[in-house]
Amino acid sequence: MTDPAPPSPLPGPVLVVGCGLIGTSVALALTRAGAQVHLADALRQHAEVAEGLGAGTTRDPERVGLVVVAVPPDHVAESVAEALSAWPDAVVTDVASVKLPPLEALVDADVDGLDRYVGSHPMAGSERSGPMAASANLFEGRAWAVTPHQRARTAAVEAVRSLAVSSGATLVEMPAAEHDAAVARVSHLPHLMSVLAASQLDGSPADHLALAGQGLRDVTRIAGSDPGLWRQILYANRAPLTDLLRGVRDDLDRLLGALDSRPALEQVLDRGVAGTALIPGKHGEERSAALVPVYVQVPDRPGELGRLLRDTGESDVNIEDLRIDHDLGRPVGLAEISVRTERADHLVEALTERGWTAHL
Amino acid sequence: MTDPAPPSPLPGPVLVVGCGLIGTSVALALTRAGAQVHLADALRQHAEVAEGLGAGTTRDPERVGLVVVAVPPDHVAESVAEALSAWPDAVVTDVASVKLPPLEALVDADVDGLDRYVGSHPMAGSERSGPMAASANLFEGRAWAVTPHQRARTAAVEAVRSLAVSSGATLVEMPAAEHDAAVARVSHLPHLMSVLAASQLDGSPADHLALAGQGLRDVTRIAGSDPGLWRQILYANRAPLTDLLRGVRDDLDRLLGALDSRPALEQVLDRGVAGTALIPGKHGEERSAALVPVYVQVPDRPGELGRLLRDTGESDVNIEDLRIDHDLGRPVGLAEISVRTERADHLVEALTERGWTAHL
Repeated sequence: MTDPAPPSPLPGPVLVVGCGLIGTSVALALTRAGAQVHLADALRQHAEVAEGLGAGTTRDPERVGLVVVAVPPDHVAESVAEALSAWPDAVVTDVASVKLPPLEALVDADVDGLDRYVGSHPMAGSERSGPMAASANLFEGRAWAVTPHQRARTAAVEAVRSLAVSSGATLVEMPAAEHDAAVARVSHLPHLMSVLAASQLDGSPADHLALAGQGLRDVTRIAGSDPGLWRQILYANRAPLTDLLRGVRDDLDRLLGALDSRPALEQVLDRGVAGTALIPGKHGEERSAALVPVYVQVPDRPGELGRLLRDTGESDVNIEDLRIDHDLGRPVGLAEISVRTERADHLVEALTERGWTAHL
Repeated sequence: MTDPAPPSPLPGPVLVVGCGLIGTSVALALTRAGAQVHLADALRQHAEVAEGLGAGTTRDPERVGLVVVAVPPDHVAESVAEALSAWPDAVVTDVASVKLPPLEALVDADVDGLDRYVGSHPMAGSERSGPMAASANLFEGRAWAVTPHQRARTAAVEAVRSLAVSSGATLVEMPAAEHDAAVARVSHLPHLMSVLAASQLDGSPADHLALAGQGLRDVTRIAGSDPGLWRQILYANRAPLTDLLRGVRDDLDRLLGALDSRPALEQVLDRGVAGTALIPGKHGEERSAALVPVYVQVPDRPGELGRLLRDTGESDVNIEDLRIDHDLGRPVGLAEISVRTERADHLVEALTERGWTAHL
């Protein structure tokens, strides 16, 4: 699945069409990698923001070796077709979350130059959107799926492999249909489960919600993402999603039957535990497995957070992630600072010495 | 819901029955608060570990003012009944996650001294369990539900309120049935949705799972929790859970019908977004009407967050809340600083002047 071979050089100049979070991040990463990058967006303002961030130039290119189409899912096929006809010598890829529907649309439309198109999908994102949220490092350590089709030229496939590797990502290759089945299971279905969980809060009294903990926040976090974007992604991938959702409904019926039986209920829970054990980076992968949360009580006064973060920095412990559990009717917030396991005890000691109430 | 009145003094000595994570943490917090604490556990070894941590003494008490029952859910009613008969002058509480079933069991058994029992539930935990994971600070800034019943003495209710406040928690009071409905919605149902999402990974090829991102990890995190404990919690609260799960099944059927319709699909997603907005400490606080987020790129180096918060403080803008959106494997985090709406533009200007990449 992962390509160990060194990538062929990136064909340039590169034209990035669509300067949102992903497009601008690709442009930033490729510019840093030494490529000449041109920026285009239906909203010229977006392209200019990206240019201001150093992602490339908004000047029209004279020639283009690679076009990266980073537009909303509903417009991918149309935008790829335009790029193929506008730049007859260029390889064209897109970075959309669903791969088979745009490929099928291009095949059905019998577009010229289909052999120069190879779809791809970087597995990176953010709750934020738009060029301001972009980062040249967005793809570091992330998977980037490349989905060749039968009519694709080898040179085109190699160019898109090179795009993924030049952006700092890890290459994963599979056919478009298999990719769509995979993301339906590991991304789109979990998103819908998060939405269903969040939807049940509708009409809940405020003092019931006062009992909410971190578990609810984690399960429902992605349900807060942009519905306009997700509507397009889920609609495009509705075929494999429908099968998975029917499976969930069957499991839900089994669960309803199991609630009256301790052993049956524990079987349901065991299957969930087994599922989490399969996730890379949850138990296996070194980075996230190496992190633990340190909890610190933060008085609700101006400057307290700054003091905490300063003290943490001065204790030479790097903050991998930080979250404030800040609730109504509480005099204090609870900061959850994720740090490397081997530094956690040191941080608790250092913060305690500085008068903080901290614990693992 | 929250009790503003100053708590009456904690009746002592305190006997903690069950020295796991919660029991030992209660004992540590009360010992720190100056109470005399006795420790008991079916596994004497657990009580001795707790004693070694400074949580109290394993000596048998001569008299007891308050018994805190912190045993697994299946054994709560039996253990509370034993405590009521063993210590005829003591107030007895438990800290289990489900409150109505043990109360009903005690009423059905017509135990003597039911007026001295008041259930409670601290909304705190850890992914770790056992006395070694305990902390005197576990309850700081957390909600602690106290669930009085009609036959409870006022003095018993006040003793348990005092327990919650002495442990550093924020008091939330509601009847047992209402508590159970609340946690079914904000804790137990989300747990089952996480389990269902994780269960769908069963049998997924490894290179499909290589496409997993942070969203899947968040949604499925709590599905990895101890099935033995959760089986007891979910079984005890199966009545309200069954109703909620039927509602989820209806929503799931609606969702299956909505997948072929962009507008219907977006309605489903909008309801999820609305649900997340209700969660305290996430997006939903009353105060947040007057708050807007300012987004700032933060290089992942020690001290950078401290510098950002210091620069924010020097710009005379108070931070109401802060969150880091940080993808593992991405060296740049995005800080989301919530500030009063009228100060947001000033903060963006001030941070930009100091070299930060910031936007509203």
